[in-house]
Amino acid sequence: MDLRALIFDVFGTVVDWRGGIIREGAELSAARPGLELDWPAFADAWRGRYPPSMNRVRTGEQPWTNLDALHRASLDELLAEFGVAATVGEDDRRRLVTAWHRLDPWPDSVAGLTRLKRRYTIAPLSNGNVALLVNMAKRAGLPWDLVLSAELVRHYKPDPETYLSAPRLLGLEPGQVMMVAAHLDDLVAARAHGLRTGYVLRPDEWGPGGEAPRPRAHDELDLVVNSLTDLADHLGA
Amino acid sequence: MDLRALIFDVFGTVVDWRGGIIREGAELSAARPGLELDWPAFADAWRGRYPPSMNRVRTGEQPWTNLDALHRASLDELLAEFGVAATVGEDDRRRLVTAWHRLDPWPDSVAGLTRLKRRYTIAPLSNGNVALLVNMAKRAGLPWDLVLSAELVRHYKPDPETYLSAPRLLGLEPGQVMMVAAHLDDLVAARAHGLRTGYVLRPDEWGPGGEAPRPRAHDELDLVVNSLTDLADHLGA
Repeated sequence: MDLRALIFDVFGTVVDWRGGIIREGAELSAARPGLELDWPAFADAWRGRYPPSMNRVRTGEQPWTNLDALHRASLDELLAEFGVAATVGEDDRRRLVTAWHRLDPWPDSVAGLTRLKRRYTIAPLSNGNVALLVNMAKRAGLPWDLVLSAELVRHYKPDPETYLSAPRLLGLEPGQVMMVAAHLDDLVAARAHGLRTGYVLRPDEWGPGGEAPRPRAHDELDLVVNSLTDLADHLGA
Repeated sequence: MDLRALIFDVFGTVVDWRGGIIREGAELSAARPGLELDWPAFADAWRGRYPPSMNRVRTGEQPWTNLDALHRASLDELLAEFGVAATVGEDDRRRLVTAWHRLDPWPDSVAGLTRLKRRYTIAPLSNGNVALLVNMAKRAGLPWDLVLSAELVRHYKPDPETYLSAPRLLGLEPGQVMMVAAHLDDLVAARAHGLRTGYVLRPDEWGPGGEAPRPRAHDELDLVVNSLTDLADHLGA
């Protein structure tokens, strides 16, 4: 492999979205007596709205809308469904949308990325919008060389335009770029467009009792690793 | 000022393009006996082709072409005009084009950016393509939070789309973003689109005997500074 750049899925791969949304929700409940909500269930439901909301953009049913705006629309729907629409006002809704900017990294993420950056160009390639990814990186200390996002090409993964934007903008061949993700569908799509693939097992993504990822054989994926420091070990960084 | 982000012109403002091209040219001449060239004059001539080549793209005379490709076309013309076309082969031409990826920062740039990054989001907003800016940053240690480039919106400065891409992608108002540049035309255009402006005096940009920048009054610009560390002093970073 003449590998030059690593691009990373973010939600679940680099940061713990579920734990972060639960933490921010609990903080909001503590500040708003009367706001009682099952935040773990709410986090899962909110995340559940994400693929269908993106698909409406991907199919052209809805014009380009960035992830903050998709998150806001699905938040408004879910607060009504959970019966707390009257309790959560405009300021709190804005605070919850930007909770996705304040997710904590997995314990190995900063150390792994810092090592990988010495040898490779590193960037997120996320469906998150640029501002979300920048705010997250500054808060969490994610040392990206640059920020790549679906927003830059106005196509959500798994559209080909998103994956192909990385080698194009970096001046590389697809085979010189590795997509790193905790989700096989992301990797299968990246591989179809010639990118290398690194699968990170994140058994805690969906919380205790959540669905655990299945390790896969190496003939489907270039690498299967347990963490980003493990990835650095495998890649000599 | 509710300033949140600083975006930087790069060539001349953050890095010394003229010194870098002369250095790389001299290294090439040392490696290729018979290649004698007045590299300072060549550097100035190459830079001189840059505005007209971008203008052909800006007016639609030429479809979108990134800066590496514009540099290559003007390099080919100039090598012929300087009478050395037969001496400089394909590999050397590629090396010269990527010399723009290997420019050295001014002595204050890394220290100033490192301080500014603690308090603000920092990014280039350059006509250079993304790969050029990423390669330059990794080599020189420029600690950008993200890389913004004309290439992302396929519009060269001073097109409005380029300036407005920064607040749009960062989720900010134009008045929360400051354009920092050593060139007044860049700042005048940024200001017309509501951005704040910081003028950095770089008297050595055009070498000894080159045109020196003129300090301007503060009523036209938000700040006039002598270096990026001076900018950090002014902005409390």
